[in-house]
Amino acid sequence: MPVLKLGLPKGSLEESTVEMFQKAGYKIDIQSRSYYPSIDDPEIQCVLLRAQEMSRYVAEGLLDCGLTGYDWVVENGLEVVEIAELVYGKVGRKPLRWVLAVPNNSDIKEAKDLEGKRIATEAVGMTKRYLAEHGVNATVEFSWGATEVKPPYLADAIVEITETGSSLKANNLKIIDTLCETTTRFIANPTAAQDPFKRRKMDRLALLLQAVLTAENRVGLMMNVHKDKLETVLAKLPALQRPTVAHLSDENWFSLTTVIDKHVARDLITDLMQAGAEGLVEYSLNKVIL
Amino acid sequence: MPVLKLGLPKGSLEESTVEMFQKAGYKIDIQSRSYYPSIDDPEIQCVLLRAQEMSRYVAEGLLDCGLTGYDWVVENGLEVVEIAELVYGKVGRKPLRWVLAVPNNSDIKEAKDLEGKRIATEAVGMTKRYLAEHGVNATVEFSWGATEVKPPYLADAIVEITETGSSLKANNLKIIDTLCETTTRFIANPTAAQDPFKRRKMDRLALLLQAVLTAENRVGLMMNVHKDKLETVLAKLPALQRPTVAHLSDENWFSLTTVIDKHVARDLITDLMQAGAEGLVEYSLNKVIL
Amino acid sequence: MPVLKLGLPKGSLEESTVEMFQKAGYKIDIQSRSYYPSIDDPEIQCVLLRAQEMSRYVAEGLLDCGLTGYDWVVENGLEVVEIAELVYGKVGRKPLRWVLAVPNNSDIKEAKDLEGKRIATEAVGMTKRYLAEHGVNATVEFSWGATEVKPPYLADAIVEITETGSSLKANNLKIIDTLCETTTRFIANPTAAQDPFKRRKMDRLALLLQAVLTAENRVGLMMNVHKDKLETVLAKLPALQRPTVAHLSDENWFSLTTVIDKHVARDLITDLMQAGAEGLVEYSLNKVIL
Amino acid sequence: MPVLKLGLPKGSLEESTVEMFQKAGYKIDIQSRSYYPSIDDPEIQCVLLRAQEMSRYVAEGLLDCGLTGYDWVVENGLEVVEIAELVYGKVGRKPLRWVLAVPNNSDIKEAKDLEGKRIATEAVGMTKRYLAEHGVNATVEFSWGATEVKPPYLADAIVEITETGSSLKANNLKIIDTLCETTTRFIANPTAAQDPFKRRKMDRLALLLQAVLTAENRVGLMMNVHKDKLETVLAKLPALQRPTVAHLSDENWFSLTTVIDKHVARDLITDLMQAGAEGLVEYSLNKVIL
Amino acid sequence: MPVLKLGLPKGSLEESTVEMFQKAGYKIDIQSRSYYPSIDDPEIQCVLLRAQEMSRYVAEGLLDCGLTGYDWVVENGLEVVEIAELVYGKVGRKPLRWVLAVPNNSDIKEAKDLEGKRIATEAVGMTKRYLAEHGVNATVEFSWGATEVKPPYLADAIVEITETGSSLKANNLKIIDTLCETTTRFIANPTAAQDPFKRRKMDRLALLLQAVLTAENRVGLMMNVHKDKLETVLAKLPALQRPTVAHLSDENWFSLTTVIDKHVARDLITDLMQAGAEGLVEYSLNKVIL
Amino acid sequence: MPVLKLGLPKGSLEESTVEMFQKAGYKIDIQSRSYYPSIDDPEIQCVLLRAQEMSRYVAEGLLDCGLTGYDWVVENGLEVVEIAELVYGKVGRKPLRWVLAVPNNSDIKEAKDLEGKRIATEAVGMTKRYLAEHGVNATVEFSWGATEVKPPYLADAIVEITETGSSLKANNLKIIDTLCETTTRFIANPTAAQDPFKRRKMDRLALLLQAVLTAENRVGLMMNVHKDKLETVLAKLPALQRPTVAHLSDENWFSLTTVIDKHVARDLITDLMQAGAEGLVEYSLNKVIL
Repeated sequence: MPVLKLGLPKGSLEESTVEMFQKAGYKIDIQSRSYYPSIDDPEIQCVLLRAQEMSRYVAEGLLDCGLTGYDWVVENGLEVVEIAELVYGKVGRKPLRWVLAVPNNSDIKEAKDLEGKRIATEAVGMTKRYLAEHGVNATVEFSWGATEVKPPYLADAIVEITETGSSLKANNLKIIDTLCETTTRFIANPTAAQDPFKRRKMDRLALLLQAVLTAENRVGLMMNVHKDKLETVLAKLPALQRPTVAHLSDENWFSLTTVIDKHVARDLITDLMQAGAEGLVEYSLNKVIL
Repeated sequence: MPVLKLGLPKGSLEESTVEMFQKAGYKIDIQSRSYYPSIDDPEIQCVLLRAQEMSRYVAEGLLDCGLTGYDWVVENGLEVVEIAELVYGKVGRKPLRWVLAVPNNSDIKEAKDLEGKRIATEAVGMTKRYLAEHGVNATVEFSWGATEVKPPYLADAIVEITETGSSLKANNLKIIDTLCETTTRFIANPTAAQDPFKRRKMDRLALLLQAVLTAENRVGLMMNVHKDKLETVLAKLPALQRPTVAHLSDENWFSLTTVIDKHVARDLITDLMQAGAEGLVEYSLNKVIL
Repeated sequence: MPVLKLGLPKGSLEESTVEMFQKAGYKIDIQSRSYYPSIDDPEIQCVLLRAQEMSRYVAEGLLDCGLTGYDWVVENGLEVVEIAELVYGKVGRKPLRWVLAVPNNSDIKEAKDLEGKRIATEAVGMTKRYLAEHGVNATVEFSWGATEVKPPYLADAIVEITETGSSLKANNLKIIDTLCETTTRFIANPTAAQDPFKRRKMDRLALLLQAVLTAENRVGLMMNVHKDKLETVLAKLPALQRPTVAHLSDENWFSLTTVIDKHVARDLITDLMQAGAEGLVEYSLNKVIL
Repeated sequence: MPVLKLGLPKGSLEESTVEMFQKAGYKIDIQSRSYYPSIDDPEIQCVLLRAQEMSRYVAEGLLDCGLTGYDWVVENGLEVVEIAELVYGKVGRKPLRWVLAVPNNSDIKEAKDLEGKRIATEAVGMTKRYLAEHGVNATVEFSWGATEVKPPYLADAIVEITETGSSLKANNLKIIDTLCETTTRFIANPTAAQDPFKRRKMDRLALLLQAVLTAENRVGLMMNVHKDKLETVLAKLPALQRPTVAHLSDENWFSLTTVIDKHVARDLITDLMQAGAEGLVEYSLNKVIL
Repeated sequence: MPVLKLGLPKGSLEESTVEMFQKAGYKIDIQSRSYYPSIDDPEIQCVLLRAQEMSRYVAEGLLDCGLTGYDWVVENGLEVVEIAELVYGKVGRKPLRWVLAVPNNSDIKEAKDLEGKRIATEAVGMTKRYLAEHGVNATVEFSWGATEVKPPYLADAIVEITETGSSLKANNLKIIDTLCETTTRFIANPTAAQDPFKRRKMDRLALLLQAVLTAENRVGLMMNVHKDKLETVLAKLPALQRPTVAHLSDENWFSLTTVIDKHVARDLITDLMQAGAEGLVEYSLNKVIL
Repeated sequence: MPVLKLGLPKGSLEESTVEMFQKAGYKIDIQSRSYYPSIDDPEIQCVLLRAQEMSRYVAEGLLDCGLTGYDWVVENGLEVVEIAELVYGKVGRKPLRWVLAVPNNSDIKEAKDLEGKRIATEAVGMTKRYLAEHGVNATVEFSWGATEVKPPYLADAIVEITETGSSLKANNLKIIDTLCETTTRFIANPTAAQDPFKRRKMDRLALLLQAVLTAENRVGLMMNVHKDKLETVLAKLPALQRPTVAHLSDENWFSLTTVIDKHVARDLITDLMQAGAEGLVEYSLNKVIL
């Protein structure tokens, strides 16, 4: 039986990955201490790996595909195929990005001021490429962690991942440039991406995972509307998503069902009630494919 | 840009308040140690405050509005406007109330027996007003906590908040009167309540929050019914909430959708099946506006 | 007022039992240290008991009914009526079973090799019956726990409950026979099962609990389909469950609603999209009665 | 190399047993999930067992010796040799005892009132012997736990272990008789107790363990005393334990060292200071052999 | 039997108080939820109380004595007798003090700038007295907690307790004056302090508790010294504490025992070794009375 | 004021390092999130760093000294001075070592079989040096963690740190060679090691830390012996450590004090009692300098 070898990211995304697969219809069971989670699909084999190493093993064909950050694909610089972008993990926040940061009172204002300085980072490759692009010579030291506490004593500048910048701010650092914005990617080995069985399997998985992520920011709305108010209510709804309008047994009434963005719902619900909607109900969705 | 300053209750209601706002469509993020939670609506600014202090800052206009207990509105005795009552936090239980309690073997049987006695309470104002109403002179001492363990050695009676009375019972106390029943209220500063922007914002928020609380005790039911059984099945449904009856492609069958009380569902589901409903499905609801 | 006395299993199933009742519409509140949980139905009284003892108290009529494992019904060998089988607790895994296990390097290959040996088990009755059926004489010792660590020093063989066998394997034991497969059962006292009030109450409860368990492996699907594609899409759906097909206001479109198995959804969703479904939405279900 | 096979009690005494051995000079390392702890003495092999089963395996010679409660030695009624009594685990409290308890409002006042009643207990053997001694016929049912919540519905009386009686009191039960007082015992197999190597090993272990337990209630005191006050100070010290009186370089002063009971120290220290002791110091002791 | 009624501080000092009493020779057992801890001295009765309320109940004679902060004695302003100062709880740190703090960018520089301002504090009495001393009129509002987050929106200044000032600093506040430094005090009711039994009991308790606190910063040193080096070694020891110098069996050697400050030990040990000490040993002390 | 910059290891050794310093007389306070712990000696500044990076910053002079593993000194290959070896962290177990491990069923038997293979390790430098010494060409890949789960799919062999080998065994790996044994070292920058102030500070610190570690495996013994038994008892004591023998006031008795190894104490105590020792007492030691 053919099998798809799939790498899942160990660490901060682990729990939300399992949850996302569960909503997609797959039960992944991670035994403590084990790195080979079980999944209830005999055509898939899973392995837990650090995001940093994922693209290496996918590129080498030891895995057919995997989930990892775009940053580590860039850092490792190896050839892989992107099947899908999956924006999850820290829902509703700003994108993660790798930034160049220096102490608040540093003289370093831009890339060229790094000449001859010492930079600590977990992403040595990305940082060296950045320096090369700016024609700057500087020492890049691999940091085993807690990079943000190193300046000014143990480093002049750092290249570090951040979401809100609050950890940098708390360590009296300021951001002076962005090297890379990153989200999670579903990547594949180029050869595996051409294998019909594997490609079909990956495409179907990607469709389900994206449907789950789309659903996280959507809600379903159901309401009853009298025929006289129907046009007014329909006019309030966002144009792009066609609502379902069903006849009721009482010919004067319609049942209206639609899917809208969670944020839109805040104001829309009051507007719909004022426009004549009755018996309005909102419910959660597992998957949405528009 | 105009902004609504909103006070949220710190402490036992904190977690359920965040959850209620989340269902209402607002993401509130409370950083540990911070008392200024972020909210994903630029027109709202939040501050965490003890429920005891909320009405003071709302009445003085330092906040436009806030969520607090009716008891502390009464205790503080300041002028605020009630936007909505929000029954949440301890779902499905008895209402919270402030009671006068004495040791099981005390001679104090009613308010007038308190003459000359010592009463410990966190609600000094409410207790003094109660004594005044009954024309009784007694010492009211502010208690910093663990009030229920003070009688009989450190106090003759206490005025304390309780839900089931079990903590009082465990300390060998009996309830002899109720001073105040309380639920959470959405209160506003009188001036803010007349400001068009702020009032519109508060009314919309109140609608969403109440829709969430209504939904917590409701479920959606969907079922198929043959036209011959439709009348029988419809007769079983609660009269007040009009069900949606849609034609199916097979003209002999109808799809019936309704929203009912969770408790009613227990018996109703069996009754509906016996009356001819088929393919019955129950689902959860985020918001309900009837 | 008549009351149904219901025993709930204390221990590993406790939390999932409360959750299952909650989905069924009953709020059970277990105070720490208390064995008499409250339930929001005045016609039911609950008591928490070890699964091992449940059938004893049900058979003797001290309880009207209870939830316990089939294994302990067998072990105790008393007369009770089975109202329903409820497969829950460890969703999606293999059934629990009581097995005969011996050290990997033991000479014991089958039941008859147990002659004169020492067997440790928590299920003494079940094991003695098994030995009698095979005409074997052996010492059966009641084990107070950690049975799987006893061979080979403290026992020659054990009879122990297992799901995946991994704990046995980790202790260098191999399974050589299965004595009993077990799931949770809703059992009743024979007299109570004939009492009209009690039987009606138990049957309705069983219906709701089974509806909850059915729903756990199902999802609801809703999608829009053009009339030209309707036949193709309908042909993709599982035959057994009749979908709801409602006319939309635009006569060329139909709204299609159905309930399918979670596992089926994985492939079906892609197939439906390819067959012409649009605006597909999946949602969770609390209860399903087909 | 000869080896002593030693059983250690699993459960509530586990942690304090490891600690007691550590003070005695033995490092026991219990890996999670393992029942064969390592000990840094190649002449000892440890196994963790429930106290209930210990005397069974010691009596049968599968273990040379073990630590268990006197109650379970009595309950099992097998032949073992007592090497030492070790009073530990719940330091400074009342001894544990098995008691006969009935509901506060029960008619059962003494053993003979149990005729025809139902008794729940974990100690079936001890209870049956007690009934036989009193010439009473009653049903004794093995209880799998939570015995104290069974009366009055599921049992008429219970035989249960208790220290302060507070759990019984909380369940509205009163104690009407005591069946057995119990402490931990170091027991040995009769044959092993006659083996020179094993007996020497056990005796030395017992000496060290008892020295640890003695030390827990003792403290060391050191003080300087002028020769003129020496008699007065010495007269204050407990007669039984001879203090060490050393000459100092200044011939007029003595250094006095002694070991006293912790409780005695409370008053003694003030008395000693008043009698002329100076520079008094108190320190903890690991082991004391008087 | 006469009894001393003793109040112990509930909250942050609770655990360290129990530990201090344990070292003093008293076992205090605090059952969860109970405010009447047991103590193994029948002549003492304990009650747990908030430090804020302690001096009130001691002054009124409901308690004979108690442990509380000097700040709350001041705040309540009632007549009590101080038996002893006990510096514990946050060993080795700066003393706790109540300070006046304002936002970093505030115009308030000193007490007189508070005229007409709003001050939030838990210590209303202390703050009002401070304002009166400076002839300033300002609003003092009782704060139920999180006082440091109130400026600048909800207060102009605060009076708050602090140790290192770091929490104030983190909230962008600066200290402009100190109202009160505080440590724990063992206080007594004036009448109880004259009762011979109670006073003797309190004095002995105070002696033991202070001996424990003294011991926390001391260590015992023991070493051997040749007679030729004795003067040199003795000269290195702190002058105030007379060491014990005992003759050994070998007349040329002395055993030297002393008690020194922990901090002094750091350098002293090297110095002593260099001066000729041999076989140096350091050990912990439970109690020290110099 | 001159200051010694000291690096402390972040991670698994962090807690035991703080504890070791505390016993040495230094209070280190690690605020959560901070990497610059406070220490109560104004002449020392601390920084928390990963052991992997310590020797880099010490060698470059950014730190004067630090605690790190010998392995990471070797891995980084930089010039530092070793002040002391400190065996702590995992007391009483085997030394940590870096080993070459392969799957149980691998054909790789020794270093030379690695030719052309893929090796995963966190210690790339150490592994490459090892391969060079054996004249072998192989791919060495940096592993970000969970190295032991990579063979056989993601690597042919690994170089990994282990203590008991149990984690390797659990992953079906066998050890075929040892690359490096390691313990904690107190290292210094060569220039700092020649600075009089810094060297003196480091030497004194090393003396105290080693005294603490020596004390962990020692206990103090004190006993009384009659002059007639003195020779016999003294003959039992280990020769190397000279006991203190003091005259008592009763000329016929001696007080004997000594320090012995914890393991020796087990048998020695019984032997001493049998040889005539009386009133034997054992106590713990904080520091021992022999």
